[in-house]
Amino acid sequence: MATLSTLDPLRTQLLTIQQINSAASLLSWDMETYMPAGGGTARADQIATLQGLAHDRLVSPDIERLLGQWVDLQTGELQPCSADSWDESARSLLREVWRDFSRAKKLPSDFVVRLGRECSLAQQVWVEARTKNDFKRFLPNLTTILALKKEEAGYLGYAHSPYDALLDHYEPGSTVGQLAPLFEKLKARLVPLLKAVLASPVSIDDGVLHESYDPARQVEFGRLVLTAMGYDFERGRLDLSAHPFTTSFHPTDVRVTTRVFERDLASCLFSCIHEGGHGLYDQGLDPRHYGTPLGDTISLGIHESQSRLWENCVGRSRPFWRGFYPLLQQTFPEQLSKVPLDRFYVAINKVQPSLIRVEADELTYNLHIMLRFEIEQDLIEGRLKLEDLSEVWREKMKSYLDVVPETDAEGVLQDIHWSMGAFGYFPTYTLGNLYSVQFFNQAKQELPGLEQEIEAGRLTGLRQWLGQKIHHWGRMFTADHLVQRVTGRSLTPDPWLTYVEQKYGELYRL
Amino acid sequence: MATLSTLDPLRTQLLTIQQINSAASLLSWDMETYMPAGGGTARADQIATLQGLAHDRLVSPDIERLLGQWVDLQTGELQPCSADSWDESARSLLREVWRDFSRAKKLPSDFVVRLGRECSLAQQVWVEARTKNDFKRFLPNLTTILALKKEEAGYLGYAHSPYDALLDHYEPGSTVGQLAPLFEKLKARLVPLLKAVLASPVSIDDGVLHESYDPARQVEFGRLVLTAMGYDFERGRLDLSAHPFTTSFHPTDVRVTTRVFERDLASCLFSCIHEGGHGLYDQGLDPRHYGTPLGDTISLGIHESQSRLWENCVGRSRPFWRGFYPLLQQTFPEQLSKVPLDRFYVAINKVQPSLIRVEADELTYNLHIMLRFEIEQDLIEGRLKLEDLSEVWREKMKSYLDVVPETDAEGVLQDIHWSMGAFGYFPTYTLGNLYSVQFFNQAKQELPGLEQEIEAGRLTGLRQWLGQKIHHWGRMFTADHLVQRVTGRSLTPDPWLTYVEQKYGELYRL
Repeated sequence: MATLSTLDPLRTQLLTIQQINSAASLLSWDMETYMPAGGGTARADQIATLQGLAHDRLVSPDIERLLGQWVDLQTGELQPCSADSWDESARSLLREVWRDFSRAKKLPSDFVVRLGRECSLAQQVWVEARTKNDFKRFLPNLTTILALKKEEAGYLGYAHSPYDALLDHYEPGSTVGQLAPLFEKLKARLVPLLKAVLASPVSIDDGVLHESYDPARQVEFGRLVLTAMGYDFERGRLDLSAHPFTTSFHPTDVRVTTRVFERDLASCLFSCIHEGGHGLYDQGLDPRHYGTPLGDTISLGIHESQSRLWENCVGRSRPFWRGFYPLLQQTFPEQLSKVPLDRFYVAINKVQPSLIRVEADELTYNLHIMLRFEIEQDLIEGRLKLEDLSEVWREKMKSYLDVVPETDAEGVLQDIHWSMGAFGYFPTYTLGNLYSVQFFNQAKQELPGLEQEIEAGRLTGLRQWLGQKIHHWGRMFTADHLVQRVTGRSLTPDPWLTYVEQKYGELYRL
Repeated sequence: MATLSTLDPLRTQLLTIQQINSAASLLSWDMETYMPAGGGTARADQIATLQGLAHDRLVSPDIERLLGQWVDLQTGELQPCSADSWDESARSLLREVWRDFSRAKKLPSDFVVRLGRECSLAQQVWVEARTKNDFKRFLPNLTTILALKKEEAGYLGYAHSPYDALLDHYEPGSTVGQLAPLFEKLKARLVPLLKAVLASPVSIDDGVLHESYDPARQVEFGRLVLTAMGYDFERGRLDLSAHPFTTSFHPTDVRVTTRVFERDLASCLFSCIHEGGHGLYDQGLDPRHYGTPLGDTISLGIHESQSRLWENCVGRSRPFWRGFYPLLQQTFPEQLSKVPLDRFYVAINKVQPSLIRVEADELTYNLHIMLRFEIEQDLIEGRLKLEDLSEVWREKMKSYLDVVPETDAEGVLQDIHWSMGAFGYFPTYTLGNLYSVQFFNQAKQELPGLEQEIEAGRLTGLRQWLGQKIHHWGRMFTADHLVQRVTGRSLTPDPWLTYVEQKYGELYRL
């Protein structure tokens, strides 16, 4: 039987490509953390060059020749002669490399460069436009980006909607046809739940989160939680950036960032836990497979499941705070020593429809995503004009969340994604939420003492389980295969809905 | 007349190569500053890959074809047809690109990879060997590196000594035949001067430098001096690292590092000024020429002249401290308010033969270099066996400096250079010292009020002069052409010798 080592010549080529991409990731991390202000333009060009080099190498005759030995380059099928003889790792590797190769191959090199350049420009204009609350300023750039993304969908091809071609980039295999019903099912139970919560006589006071909290101590507490989660600081760092993110250059160097506001205890805390969840996934990849799909993460949805599992299922749960609240009180005795655990617990779970996605609570978050999912579909399928975008945004916010932004900065300009050309990215946030509960329920079944462990502040059992079940495998399985393998069924919104119905039913005495 | 724009196709190719090299530099900077401990192995591989890619592109058929249109690739002569028609910038660019190309082309790709890998390994072993004071542990790696460097000299070719081929890498055009007499002249006046200094009844007490100084304040003072020098923090940073260094990714992003010891005020202070001098050179390059030799620095000797000019001619001078000592006293009132300027001035200029090059005073420093210059020559020309290196080191230290290291860690293992394969690098430190005084003397002539300006804490006039005379030009001129252009004569040790004879004659009442 042929094994991975048969593929060594291919793996060597892939390693180089990954090393270039890792370098580009470090350049981006540095841009968000330590780069001096004046370095932006040159840096954007350097990153674009590296990305271009990586793309060129992926579609190079070398890769084509190597891959073509074993795979039908048109269909991705293993060559008949070799179909029976590969072990599972090698099959998976070839399946995923072919996926990456064939997607990249469909995009002309000059298109990739053009898209990169336009996105780089658009991001700079978006920053200005958001600061000045001037959507019109961003409109020409967004128009260009949207046209390019439609062009991209044309190159990539699709069966039903051009949006499918873009979704597939972030969540392989996902389509409008699959997501729309999922989102409908979600909406059908979520909207009434939210209505009930908002109609509840229970009123939660989260003022305790908005006392004055020393920023340095907030970060130190974040570091403490990350350490308890098993995030390895020998192979990672925690830094500050305008928007929290996680990036990886190798399983031995995975970095998370947070941000910290003196009067918002939740922001630094939950972004540390959230990014820590991402970080554990990246640190949990097998370093022997670095450079190949077996050393890579499956999809943004699966990645987000890891961050959300830690942030919400663990980090917003009573058991977690039974363990960690005393430590938080010790860190901030002045503000918290007289605040009972339960008041803190309800404060961090307060439901409050708001304008900004990244500040949304667990319950309303998915409605922000649905709005974007619908808008993206309409834009890409040509039913919505960008000129009307700002108005449509307000209408949908009113209809889903009953709040209306007064400015575009708090509305359509709030997210960086479209300026980066990342159409099709948003739905993965909701997929991540749904996956997270499905995985966590399974963990609770398989680890009987899990709640007690979490209460005792011991989180590494959960991390190990996630490592063995999910992290360790890289892209060995597709997302659907993985979730079936781990939980015994495909993704469904029911576990998440049941989880929020129970949790918020109790919190709001429904 | 053909101009630079004729060369645009070539410049575009060069830009990509520089962007790859800049990325590699950022990866190295990060490795020395913020990288988590576990990331070292993967990082070394990533850097090696980027360097390999840059090398491959430089010797690629694309560059060969473009360059070959205008230059005889064998000799570097401009093609007869075009010889008269290029402007000076274009001629310089072609001269320098040909130099880089033809040197790179002589080295087989697999040799470059092999050398990179062995150096990467050797550096790690060197760190261990130094920590454990175990030269034998490092010996096999050093043996491999030395053999590879001899092999490299063979590929590159040379007229007289294989050491010439290596010297030329760091200081283009320099040879043993040119350096040896220079060093002899230097030695002839320096050794008696040092003898006289050591025999002088004047005894300098530098205890004031070894009080307890708050590290954070030391760094703040370093930042203050850097700002006064005109180092632009919008296009730069100051960080901490084990060994101070300067690196540049573009003229808009030039970073310096320092180190800080509570009981050694001079270390952080002078490394900030020293690296600031390097940083000003890199920030002073013309960003329009980024990627081509016209946007690059001439040689390590010229680079070191900038750091030494600021560190010694300015930073260890009375006028400088007339301006800055009151500020230093304000920063450290407890330790310095009662110490008169003159006692501080003599303390920072104390001559004291010592074991470690990087801690050597202005006067003994060049003797550390001469020792290494002689040893490198003997190693590369095969007159000295590595087995005897440790002993020879001790003998030469005794003979030049009258001090003998008790351990190899303080002797032959102290410098990183050989583990990096950087044979031929050391002499550029002395060249930098000599150039620095020759340039500074010229600045004093051309800027009549310079001393008064420096006394007043105004350093930007000097920075501007250096910018216009040196930084701005990139590699337009060779080092020899530049020094002639700026000072009216080729490099000679006389100005430096006269400078130290006067300065230390006065200090030690000779």
